[in-house]
Amino acid sequence: MSKYVLKASCPDSKGIVAAVTTMMAANDANVLDLTQHTASDIDIFMLKTLFEAPDPFDRALFEKVFKVTADRFRMIWELYDTNRNERVAILVGKTNHCLWELLLKHKDGEIDCEIPLIISNHSNNRGIAEQFKIPFHHIDYEPGKAASEEKIQQLLMDYEINLVVMARFMRILSPDFTRRWENRIINIHHGFLPSFTGAKPYHQAWHKGVKIIGATAHFANELLDMGPIIAQEVIHVSDLSSINHLVQIGKDVERRTLVHALKLYLSHSIFVYRNRTFILR
Amino acid sequence: MSKYVLKASCPDSKGIVAAVTTMMAANDANVLDLTQHTASDIDIFMLKTLFEAPDPFDRALFEKVFKVTADRFRMIWELYDTNRNERVAILVGKTNHCLWELLLKHKDGEIDCEIPLIISNHSNNRGIAEQFKIPFHHIDYEPGKAASEEKIQQLLMDYEINLVVMARFMRILSPDFTRRWENRIINIHHGFLPSFTGAKPYHQAWHKGVKIIGATAHFANELLDMGPIIAQEVIHVSDLSSINHLVQIGKDVERRTLVHALKLYLSHSIFVYRNRTFILR
Amino acid sequence: MSKYVLKASCPDSKGIVAAVTTMMAANDANVLDLTQHTASDIDIFMLKTLFEAPDPFDRALFEKVFKVTADRFRMIWELYDTNRNERVAILVGKTNHCLWELLLKHKDGEIDCEIPLIISNHSNNRGIAEQFKIPFHHIDYEPGKAASEEKIQQLLMDYEINLVVMARFMRILSPDFTRRWENRIINIHHGFLPSFTGAKPYHQAWHKGVKIIGATAHFANELLDMGPIIAQEVIHVSDLSSINHLVQIGKDVERRTLVHALKLYLSHSIFVYRNRTFILR
Amino acid sequence: MSKYVLKASCPDSKGIVAAVTTMMAANDANVLDLTQHTASDIDIFMLKTLFEAPDPFDRALFEKVFKVTADRFRMIWELYDTNRNERVAILVGKTNHCLWELLLKHKDGEIDCEIPLIISNHSNNRGIAEQFKIPFHHIDYEPGKAASEEKIQQLLMDYEINLVVMARFMRILSPDFTRRWENRIINIHHGFLPSFTGAKPYHQAWHKGVKIIGATAHFANELLDMGPIIAQEVIHVSDLSSINHLVQIGKDVERRTLVHALKLYLSHSIFVYRNRTFILR
Repeated sequence: MSKYVLKASCPDSKGIVAAVTTMMAANDANVLDLTQHTASDIDIFMLKTLFEAPDPFDRALFEKVFKVTADRFRMIWELYDTNRNERVAILVGKTNHCLWELLLKHKDGEIDCEIPLIISNHSNNRGIAEQFKIPFHHIDYEPGKAASEEKIQQLLMDYEINLVVMARFMRILSPDFTRRWENRIINIHHGFLPSFTGAKPYHQAWHKGVKIIGATAHFANELLDMGPIIAQEVIHVSDLSSINHLVQIGKDVERRTLVHALKLYLSHSIFVYRNRTFILR
Repeated sequence: MSKYVLKASCPDSKGIVAAVTTMMAANDANVLDLTQHTASDIDIFMLKTLFEAPDPFDRALFEKVFKVTADRFRMIWELYDTNRNERVAILVGKTNHCLWELLLKHKDGEIDCEIPLIISNHSNNRGIAEQFKIPFHHIDYEPGKAASEEKIQQLLMDYEINLVVMARFMRILSPDFTRRWENRIINIHHGFLPSFTGAKPYHQAWHKGVKIIGATAHFANELLDMGPIIAQEVIHVSDLSSINHLVQIGKDVERRTLVHALKLYLSHSIFVYRNRTFILR
Repeated sequence: MSKYVLKASCPDSKGIVAAVTTMMAANDANVLDLTQHTASDIDIFMLKTLFEAPDPFDRALFEKVFKVTADRFRMIWELYDTNRNERVAILVGKTNHCLWELLLKHKDGEIDCEIPLIISNHSNNRGIAEQFKIPFHHIDYEPGKAASEEKIQQLLMDYEINLVVMARFMRILSPDFTRRWENRIINIHHGFLPSFTGAKPYHQAWHKGVKIIGATAHFANELLDMGPIIAQEVIHVSDLSSINHLVQIGKDVERRTLVHALKLYLSHSIFVYRNRTFILR
Repeated sequence: MSKYVLKASCPDSKGIVAAVTTMMAANDANVLDLTQHTASDIDIFMLKTLFEAPDPFDRALFEKVFKVTADRFRMIWELYDTNRNERVAILVGKTNHCLWELLLKHKDGEIDCEIPLIISNHSNNRGIAEQFKIPFHHIDYEPGKAASEEKIQQLLMDYEINLVVMARFMRILSPDFTRRWENRIINIHHGFLPSFTGAKPYHQAWHKGVKIIGATAHFANELLDMGPIIAQEVIHVSDLSSINHLVQIGKDVERRTLVHALKLYLSHSIFVYRNRTFILR
């Protein structure tokens, strides 16, 4: 038996759950899990289901049959084979607390994917990559330099990467690049968006005197720190904390938020609609 | 069109979701919402679904048809008419922060039920009840006194009550009474259970030096503060707080937890199995 | 014996704590509590101390003697008599969850001040004021209308008010007014500032897809929702919440944050420096 | 100039802060920071102060002079030289998420101490120790076996250790051992004490159906998981989490709580009184 995840969204109307589950039952697809939600403010229906099908599963046939139902409700939909792990590349700068977190939790079995590639514009983290036996590529990244991004793109293709995680990469990718990887680049921003975009968010937060700091994992798009938000975490901070203290406290929040977002992606829980996400566990 | 909630649980096996949704589609029941969960540690499947049916809905027929599917999977199940509001009685002692919270939020439309009855072993809260135009009955409650509980029982029947909420009632109901109202009495305990059962939990917590205090809403059963937990909330407390300060901070946590638990009940989200609950939104 | 709170701040230098405590010991002022903090990022020293002095306390003499120390360190300072309660006026609009919270907690003894005056631009909350036996004044507030603010100002003076609390007043006070009451008007904003200023912050938050919503209590100044932040609270929200649900959830966060900020003010814990606050308990 | 921390506690009475600060001023000790608290429920006064003294500092003389004040108020007190780092030994079992956390944060400069020694009853973590260039000693620990603890004691003496951190050591130390290291062994328990002491706390929590899990860092004493609590952290868990999921979620809470407790210890913020702690930052 193989397991698949089906994700679909469409304008809300009656009978969608029944239509989908009936179609599945009729096609030997045994529903194991089903979650659905209607965002009533915009009348959008979303559905995620995990199902089991006898081997060999004729995926093409299933898709053809499902297309009838999908078209009827004007669905946007995707089908994922749970046996096929996502291949994730990490882009990292000099700071490495997020890199450590990803690699340790991956090794511990908590993050379910392949990590076959690490790219950095610094070389200080090569040793960490080697310790985990992951190929490390140093790229002299210059903002706006198409050449660097071409090299990155080539590496991503060579390693058959599906998802890019920016683990404090601290560079702004070009619109060309983010469009090519739309909703497939996760960035961690060290601030509670939409507040404090751009550089030195902890400095901004300190001078504003906020009582709570946070981190935001979002899909990178052509606008700086403005892509769809995937996950956010916050922590109360004492007024007596210095900026440096905020930076230190923030590291824990950043790595936690990034891991959380990555897990949501890998479990196919993220729906994107009009620049915002909906998470269906 | 009428809306109904169907709740069912049974030993896990294949095809339950498909069987239920197929059966419903075949009987003109349009699934609007469906949530299901398998507790893999104990192999128990749970399902909650909201569906719509054309009027007039032949409930008896639906139940008869559904029984075939239910029996096949050995389901325990219940069907709720969403047009029929639960009728909730509040039992309250002298302290009234939970009472205020329930009545203000009920008036504000946040708590979706009827509150036709308030019972107290004190008379100080009569004025509050009158302000909200709710009948108030004073009962001289003596622990262990069967007569008092008979009076309470009579009132609950007279007012056709479905659910009892103990909003800091501070008396221990007899096993006879709690058994009669099994999983239909919600109590708020001012401690993070299973720690600190019984009297003066904030005093216990202070002397133990815990860094976090909490409140627990649970179904009352014959064991003191040991019934199935519905909701819990906590708050960090400073080591520099006095016991009185803990009591004060705790009030906010108590009322929030109690309201949360009541809402879960009213939305039919609580499954009870072997003295623990599972919450399916 | 009388108790006083002394607050002082100045550029950081050595010996301040010693100088202050020595001066106090020499003048029969017995230090009961002392908290101090140096904001190292801006080299500003802050001190708050609660002390006891034998009756009759010659306040003028104490101030004269203390001025020598204060001038030496270029201190900004204030002295508060703990026997003299602050007199707080509430400005409220139509929405009343914050009003209820303030009045119930005040009655319960949790908020230590006088509340001799409620002003509203609506009349629906008159009954609540009467129930708590607090004078209620209806003012036809028009933004930009100096006349309305003159009436408010006159009421504040008539009732000898020290602090104004805007409990969801939902009007923007004029710069003239906020300057007159600088750092003595607490406003509750139903968003996590600096994000989502202005109108309908929950709508903004929903469409942005933030995973956490919050409320911010701040001193009102001439810039909309930009005054010094006193307290902030947040809560995780499900992606599946509607805007209306956010509004409902938000109410609890708002009232909690407002009460928290008011308590900080009444305990003389708020230091304001360059448009941000520092809280010293 | 050298910096020292002075901690003192005693029965509450008037004039303690003044007496201490006056004595210090008279002895060239410049107070930089001072925090004090009176636990009004038990009438105990606690004070922590950081002061600066010109070099060379005659510590013996200072202690002699301070003793007069200390004896007058029946103080228990300690003096710490901030130039002298604590020497911390880590005891670890097979599980290593807490070990990684301590070593990475120590390397990152976040934990301010020496870590010259790691002891384990397993050998799987030897490689990690070597990577951080810290001596690793494998001890065949058998519960109740005095010989093993003698070896541990010898190592702690050889390495001049001041504090022992049990980073998921999972063995119960003998009363002889814990008494010798009273309030100098920090243990991390993977449950929210006082609930769920002993083995498999996540299993206990799951079967009880608690809605929040936690971790507790405490001083180890002769009673299992009953020593003074230093720090606690919690996290809401979904009812839909499996036991394994709780174990995984719990790891983050454990390592965070342990690091937090260690930092409190290293900043001399922990006061112990009658089996509970008071934290004065």
